[in-house]
Amino acid sequence: MTRPSGRRPEQLRPVKITRDFTCHAEGSVLIEFGKTKVICTASVTPGVPRFLRGKGEGWVTAEYGMLPRSTGSRMDREAARGKQGGRTQEIQRLIGRSLRAAVDMKKLGEHTINIDCDVIQADGGTRTASITGACVAMVDAIRHLQRKKAILDDPLLCMIASVSVGIYKGTPVLDLDYPEDSKAETDMNVVMNSEGGFIEVQGTAEAAPFSEEELSAMLGLAKQGIADLVRVQKMALAQ
Amino acid sequence: MTRPSGRRPEQLRPVKITRDFTCHAEGSVLIEFGKTKVICTASVTPGVPRFLRGKGEGWVTAEYGMLPRSTGSRMDREAARGKQGGRTQEIQRLIGRSLRAAVDMKKLGEHTINIDCDVIQADGGTRTASITGACVAMVDAIRHLQRKKAILDDPLLCMIASVSVGIYKGTPVLDLDYPEDSKAETDMNVVMNSEGGFIEVQGTAEAAPFSEEELSAMLGLAKQGIADLVRVQKMALAQ
Amino acid sequence: MTRPSGRRPEQLRPVKITRDFTCHAEGSVLIEFGKTKVICTASVTPGVPRFLRGKGEGWVTAEYGMLPRSTGSRMDREAARGKQGGRTQEIQRLIGRSLRAAVDMKKLGEHTINIDCDVIQADGGTRTASITGACVAMVDAIRHLQRKKAILDDPLLCMIASVSVGIYKGTPVLDLDYPEDSKAETDMNVVMNSEGGFIEVQGTAEAAPFSEEELSAMLGLAKQGIADLVRVQKMALAQ
Amino acid sequence: MTRPSGRRPEQLRPVKITRDFTCHAEGSVLIEFGKTKVICTASVTPGVPRFLRGKGEGWVTAEYGMLPRSTGSRMDREAARGKQGGRTQEIQRLIGRSLRAAVDMKKLGEHTINIDCDVIQADGGTRTASITGACVAMVDAIRHLQRKKAILDDPLLCMIASVSVGIYKGTPVLDLDYPEDSKAETDMNVVMNSEGGFIEVQGTAEAAPFSEEELSAMLGLAKQGIADLVRVQKMALAQ
Amino acid sequence: MTRPSGRRPEQLRPVKITRDFTCHAEGSVLIEFGKTKVICTASVTPGVPRFLRGKGEGWVTAEYGMLPRSTGSRMDREAARGKQGGRTQEIQRLIGRSLRAAVDMKKLGEHTINIDCDVIQADGGTRTASITGACVAMVDAIRHLQRKKAILDDPLLCMIASVSVGIYKGTPVLDLDYPEDSKAETDMNVVMNSEGGFIEVQGTAEAAPFSEEELSAMLGLAKQGIADLVRVQKMALAQ
Amino acid sequence: MTRPSGRRPEQLRPVKITRDFTCHAEGSVLIEFGKTKVICTASVTPGVPRFLRGKGEGWVTAEYGMLPRSTGSRMDREAARGKQGGRTQEIQRLIGRSLRAAVDMKKLGEHTINIDCDVIQADGGTRTASITGACVAMVDAIRHLQRKKAILDDPLLCMIASVSVGIYKGTPVLDLDYPEDSKAETDMNVVMNSEGGFIEVQGTAEAAPFSEEELSAMLGLAKQGIADLVRVQKMALAQ
Repeated sequence: MTRPSGRRPEQLRPVKITRDFTCHAEGSVLIEFGKTKVICTASVTPGVPRFLRGKGEGWVTAEYGMLPRSTGSRMDREAARGKQGGRTQEIQRLIGRSLRAAVDMKKLGEHTINIDCDVIQADGGTRTASITGACVAMVDAIRHLQRKKAILDDPLLCMIASVSVGIYKGTPVLDLDYPEDSKAETDMNVVMNSEGGFIEVQGTAEAAPFSEEELSAMLGLAKQGIADLVRVQKMALAQ
Repeated sequence: MTRPSGRRPEQLRPVKITRDFTCHAEGSVLIEFGKTKVICTASVTPGVPRFLRGKGEGWVTAEYGMLPRSTGSRMDREAARGKQGGRTQEIQRLIGRSLRAAVDMKKLGEHTINIDCDVIQADGGTRTASITGACVAMVDAIRHLQRKKAILDDPLLCMIASVSVGIYKGTPVLDLDYPEDSKAETDMNVVMNSEGGFIEVQGTAEAAPFSEEELSAMLGLAKQGIADLVRVQKMALAQ
Repeated sequence: MTRPSGRRPEQLRPVKITRDFTCHAEGSVLIEFGKTKVICTASVTPGVPRFLRGKGEGWVTAEYGMLPRSTGSRMDREAARGKQGGRTQEIQRLIGRSLRAAVDMKKLGEHTINIDCDVIQADGGTRTASITGACVAMVDAIRHLQRKKAILDDPLLCMIASVSVGIYKGTPVLDLDYPEDSKAETDMNVVMNSEGGFIEVQGTAEAAPFSEEELSAMLGLAKQGIADLVRVQKMALAQ
Repeated sequence: MTRPSGRRPEQLRPVKITRDFTCHAEGSVLIEFGKTKVICTASVTPGVPRFLRGKGEGWVTAEYGMLPRSTGSRMDREAARGKQGGRTQEIQRLIGRSLRAAVDMKKLGEHTINIDCDVIQADGGTRTASITGACVAMVDAIRHLQRKKAILDDPLLCMIASVSVGIYKGTPVLDLDYPEDSKAETDMNVVMNSEGGFIEVQGTAEAAPFSEEELSAMLGLAKQGIADLVRVQKMALAQ
Repeated sequence: MTRPSGRRPEQLRPVKITRDFTCHAEGSVLIEFGKTKVICTASVTPGVPRFLRGKGEGWVTAEYGMLPRSTGSRMDREAARGKQGGRTQEIQRLIGRSLRAAVDMKKLGEHTINIDCDVIQADGGTRTASITGACVAMVDAIRHLQRKKAILDDPLLCMIASVSVGIYKGTPVLDLDYPEDSKAETDMNVVMNSEGGFIEVQGTAEAAPFSEEELSAMLGLAKQGIADLVRVQKMALAQ
Repeated sequence: MTRPSGRRPEQLRPVKITRDFTCHAEGSVLIEFGKTKVICTASVTPGVPRFLRGKGEGWVTAEYGMLPRSTGSRMDREAARGKQGGRTQEIQRLIGRSLRAAVDMKKLGEHTINIDCDVIQADGGTRTASITGACVAMVDAIRHLQRKKAILDDPLLCMIASVSVGIYKGTPVLDLDYPEDSKAETDMNVVMNSEGGFIEVQGTAEAAPFSEEELSAMLGLAKQGIADLVRVQKMALAQ
């Protein structure tokens, strides 16, 4: 089995994280997983949604979008169609849930962090790149709050990163690009924290059911890939 | 650890499948997982959506809803609010994807099967009950097409069933009801086919990350629970 | 003239009222007018809509829906289309108006009763069955408020019930089922209270104008039918 | 009992019908029932809605709106809110149904007549004025089709007119204006044709249930009022 | 070059302003630019939108609509389509912005003036007629506030009027009607105040770019036309 | 008068055009006017909208959006709110109209060019940067069609560019950034073609009316700025 990109099964695409990509947001990151490019911003606002008011806790929520021509053929603009599709909603709920696992909401206090992940170029793995990049943007936003003395204790519990794995032509592979993703028998998105705990596991049989052994093999690849992604995140944050 | 319901960790709630629950649909099932009750109908229409026309293949799609007072406190009616929420869309996409894994679309020919899962009483596990009940309704709809000679070969590949598993007070448990679900550390929905293959695995860390061992333990419970559910499905279909 | 069902012109379909049909709502009724089946729930919430605040009065409002396959061919789901149709709105406004005629709002105090009528199987007369069943659910919700001492005086003024009448093949008939309804020359929905007062009269010439004599004959049938329905309501409440 | 306007119980407000009120529509009428003023236009388009195609029949449909400041306090503009309210939909369905009773759809052939009733000043009775004015506009549109030889036989079966009646301070009264309407015990809208047949009867108990005698008295007033309105329609058309 | 209407290039259509056209609004004007007829109302409400609260300033905002058959062929009703089109929004933003230039918001105090411009008959120039008529309605609304002593100082800074100019068959012309507008090479809408200051200039090359000389010639025509319109406004207000 | 940026009144911000910014679109440009950054893509699809079918002509249309945190404080995402605001629609209509002035639709044949302008960082002048960048993307898309021999004659008539001008502290200035734009007395957007013809002129008095002399001065600045922008466009296309 040869991957279309020539990568080895356990090989990530080149990953690049550019901080301060745009100038207004408290955290702004361009993340690249190969040709997949996502702008992830973290915006801080005082106050929390109605259901949390008065509890002294913070909130993290996320929205996701794709530029209409981030893909091979132009998609309708969701703002023009007047609603976000099911896939968009599913992804933004996943991003929000994943990032909340990195934050101690009591220590964040009554602040909301709005994550925006906007895909400017898509080549598979946009949701995993979004989570991985958004975590870095969120750390920058938290550091901003700390510098401003708006919060005293550090609410960051860990880093969160995500990668896709799948069964492609019978072989478990890491970090599928679009040519692989569109033909994979099974596709799985895994979110983990920097301490090796699982946050989300979403596996889907696309063309054929998968076995427990295949699941194990995929989880093994994901673990290793996420460990590498966390290293890239930490290096970016260290600069 | 004692479960609120007094069940053993590996024990399903009483499951009941009533076929021909309403009179108009080609397949109509009331499924009960304990106090969770869902009406699942399968409606057959000739023709397929635009993106499939002329390929000689069929289609299976699903919609999901909850009656406003199926829950402890009344929820807004989605039709009145003017849109389906993210959770609803996520669930109906999962149901559709899961059931498509049971059907040979070529043998179904240019027919569409619309699945409707409407929760009339909710006590946790509405999506897993929906999938399990909808599969029975879909079989009835397929049998209807065969009786009418609208299709010649049997497009049914296998049965599909689903159950939730989770970590509740540190213990892996099967088929969470609402009191468990709302407090579980981890919640996982598993969809499998009657041959033991995985179709979907969706695990979410609610309160704490989960380990690979916990994941394995949960998958083990799910396997056994789904085998039991398939038996109940087959008994219902045999009547 | 023979009715498709073989009933006599002045004969109701078998009517059945099942209280406590679902477990969460303060009032929950399954009502059956022959093959027409509607789940009617009454949900109590403290407080009233903005336009009534501070007046010390309560409010009763209603919503109506049909499951997509409650009918002979599947209808679009209103939540998915993103809006409630004109027929739905007309019916839910009628249900709300009718039930408000049974309640002394001053005695209800600042509570809102939300009525939900969801048709699970349709065979004509869904709006009249909804009103008749919802009144029983509302009485249960009111009794719940009284048991909890949330209100002191009984706000229930009377019972409300409803039935359709029409001219079918030249003959006035009571309680039309779908085969009659779709061919009737005239169709009229009548809502009355348990003291014989008219609450709503909505007559429509479908195929031919109707005369004052026909109107009188239809009203006569409705009166008698509603008296019977009130007896069924009272028997259900007495159990 | 004195009516706020000083009218006798059986007295209509001054009714005025101005044909050719605007210049583009095939039929365009300004109708005034006292201070209530409605622009009614009838627009002819070739072709019919999808559900009627190929049957050789025509269609009549109606839309209704109120200018935001046609009323005492400004209402939200429905186009800006993004949907038509339940009352609007109820009224436009009533107008369409009523006018269809005046037309032989076979003779109309595959043409659609779109009725638009736009209230520019409201003082009660906007739906009855709309129906009465729209019928005149529709006749002008039908005459236009005949003059153009687009249809050969006259599809007009009769005239349609409408008036409200009610119980005001215990007395049945004809053609309620806003001060009466807002305080009436009962409010009823009656649509009849020029041959004395009933098309629609919609009676609502606002403050108290009504008896069969009150219903009869109201119908008697309506009959006489509608006969007068038909005379005004015919005089307008004769000019 | 002959204009379709036979007017000279610098000639306005007959302009007519009827105050108190409808009875409920604080200001209500029917303005006619030839066959173009627009009902302009100004409604006063206490309070201001959220973004202005507590500043002691007032607000003026505008909405615009066209009756479906105000035009040669019937347009869809925006309320029925569920949204206002881009052209509508552009025009109502222009009307609001233009009229705010006539008002000292501090002196208006915390009142909102809602302008509604509803076109009942269209023949080109609906936005310019709207602005010109709405200014008169607004003055009436301001005078109403002054008579009621709700404001003490006069917030009116000047009159605002508007006219279209264009290049038609190579010649600059004033106040284009629909036959000219639909064929003009360039179309420009100009808003000025009664002191000769420009408020808005919106020129669009429809069929060919325009030169600075053409722009100057058009502005010259607009100036003179607006001076005439201000005279008509003042005469109307003087009656 | 000193401009906040220290620029001379007639000085543009540094302008940078990066072609092939993303990989999927037929034309893809990142344009920077100082800190304002917009991704402009041009996507080609065969066929034209319904209103043009069968005429042998092409079409150019545009959509515009801002990433939620492209601005100083986060804006709501239009896709999540469910509609595009009035400002967005106004801008995208302007972009489409402007670019259509550069194309001979007959020579484009039945192809549609969809322009998408997405602002990733905003500092004033997003609409003028969008037009200027989109024109370059459109040229690339046209060249793509020519290389593929999908069209034979060159449909490009000229280049189109745009810049803002305004009166800031009494002085006419070119290419306003956000600090100037938010305080300018007058703001004007000018679109011209590469042959010096005006395509659009949109001037708005923000704080004070403007005179004909000020208008002339602003137009003079715009002319010179646009000539410079056209040079930058041509250099980018020459690479």
